[in-house]
Amino acid sequence: MAVVTDTLLADGLKRIQREIDAAFDSMLPLPADPRSRLIEAMRYATIGGGKRVRPLLVASVAELYGVDRQAAIRAGVAIESVHVYSLIHDDLPCMDNDAMRHGKPTLHIAFDEATAVLAGDALQCFAFEVLGDVATSGDPFTRIELVTTLAVASGHNGMAGGQMMDMAAENSSFDLPTVTRLQQLKTGALLGAAVEMGAILGKVPVEGRKHLRAYARDIGLAFQIVDDLLDHEGDEEAAGKALRKDAEKGKETFVSLLGADRAREQARLLIDQAIGSLAGHGAEADMLRALARFIVERNF
Amino acid sequence: MAVVTDTLLADGLKRIQREIDAAFDSMLPLPADPRSRLIEAMRYATIGGGKRVRPLLVASVAELYGVDRQAAIRAGVAIESVHVYSLIHDDLPCMDNDAMRHGKPTLHIAFDEATAVLAGDALQCFAFEVLGDVATSGDPFTRIELVTTLAVASGHNGMAGGQMMDMAAENSSFDLPTVTRLQQLKTGALLGAAVEMGAILGKVPVEGRKHLRAYARDIGLAFQIVDDLLDHEGDEEAAGKALRKDAEKGKETFVSLLGADRAREQARLLIDQAIGSLAGHGAEADMLRALARFIVERNF
Repeated sequence: MAVVTDTLLADGLKRIQREIDAAFDSMLPLPADPRSRLIEAMRYATIGGGKRVRPLLVASVAELYGVDRQAAIRAGVAIESVHVYSLIHDDLPCMDNDAMRHGKPTLHIAFDEATAVLAGDALQCFAFEVLGDVATSGDPFTRIELVTTLAVASGHNGMAGGQMMDMAAENSSFDLPTVTRLQQLKTGALLGAAVEMGAILGKVPVEGRKHLRAYARDIGLAFQIVDDLLDHEGDEEAAGKALRKDAEKGKETFVSLLGADRAREQARLLIDQAIGSLAGHGAEADMLRALARFIVERNF
Repeated sequence: MAVVTDTLLADGLKRIQREIDAAFDSMLPLPADPRSRLIEAMRYATIGGGKRVRPLLVASVAELYGVDRQAAIRAGVAIESVHVYSLIHDDLPCMDNDAMRHGKPTLHIAFDEATAVLAGDALQCFAFEVLGDVATSGDPFTRIELVTTLAVASGHNGMAGGQMMDMAAENSSFDLPTVTRLQQLKTGALLGAAVEMGAILGKVPVEGRKHLRAYARDIGLAFQIVDDLLDHEGDEEAAGKALRKDAEKGKETFVSLLGADRAREQARLLIDQAIGSLAGHGAEADMLRALARFIVERNF
């Protein structure tokens, strides 16, 4: 389904996908009691699906600073748990009412709505359990900073706030600054948290993270612009989900506000800028550069 | 609606209700943007409702060890956020489909289903944001232990796991040990976390918490037995919610398995035992004793 032409990135994605799958598999064993259906649902949603862009961001930034790979994978599992829970709840009938995700039935279709609500809830919680665990980082300063970063990025001042703005967008006519703010919260906050968590694991002081935050902000916005373009003109089979929903709902997007050509141009400029922010790093940041380029070139 | 005869407890509940309301009010200010509906929903669900048993447990245990009141209130806000999110999601049409809670319309009735899902999600996240914040405890060891305790108690090995067992109970015929395990997870885990969080704030080493854990386990089970009794024979107006649901769904409860008389007797024995666990404390533990007695004597 996916075509990733860059070898470094293709290998990096394959590796992180394998590592994240293995981590969820070992960290969510099936219990021999009536809770098993819940854990089955959590496993269905987390194992074997998704590009794992957020874990790759955590791991690639962490690698710049020589962080132990297992610590980065655990932080990646945490942020991916939040991402997956948000997809499960977004797909619910009362939200986007989507039947397909990553090329398979959504959780409430494969199981049932109540189990989908509960599995999403449990996955959000699991994220903080993983970050709090001493195995993620023995140092409590690092762990608590990871917790706070992920909590702020996911909550009402981050992803959940952006999701509420997105729901309001159906009945409003948002301008470009408002759509930008919406997307910075809805998608950008969690991508930003991924980069930040890599830097936290690397014990990079706040003043040394500016270029990484700039990189994250730019790829986050570009990511969403490309999402809008794919929703507008993409292929449902490659995407593994329903498309053309924003236009149906009359929501303003980067494409409706800028037109497809200017939106594409804007995404390219943002990616150039993101790669520019990494100028202080050598070849060790090539994965982050390849990931930035992939964001505008992807077809899924 | 509520009749609390014990003066110490009545004052303690009034005080903590005022403090928790004030804390939610100041910590969830309404933003002047389209996220406001989400924060309005979070405020609707958190301010001015609920007995605040969990925050009172945190604060009363914390007080045994001379913890700063504001730190205890913040931890109380966190655990109450988790409790409230679980009620919001439990009330959804796909779960218990309840229209009334704390004597007012449930969140999905007062707002809408999508907002209720999202507000629950954001409140869970908010809990970890509050615990991670330096204002809750400057000491990162304490904060990360609070996070882990709350995350484990809420997740698939705690409250969410118990909720899944409860859903399975509709199609199964659980025996007494299984119903006990179900309730220890569904209600007991979070009550246990409340007591534990008070001890964590008090920097009580794990080996010094045994009597508090025993107290929490016993009041947790008694609490649920009384809930089953109230569901069986209680007054809907006093409860502020619909009753008699377990029998309708054919779920086994402590009352269906033991009979009302033996269930009541069992709850009383558990409370005596819980109060016995506090024998090493003097008058400073009177609030915990009064709270234990209240659990079996309450009518709501």
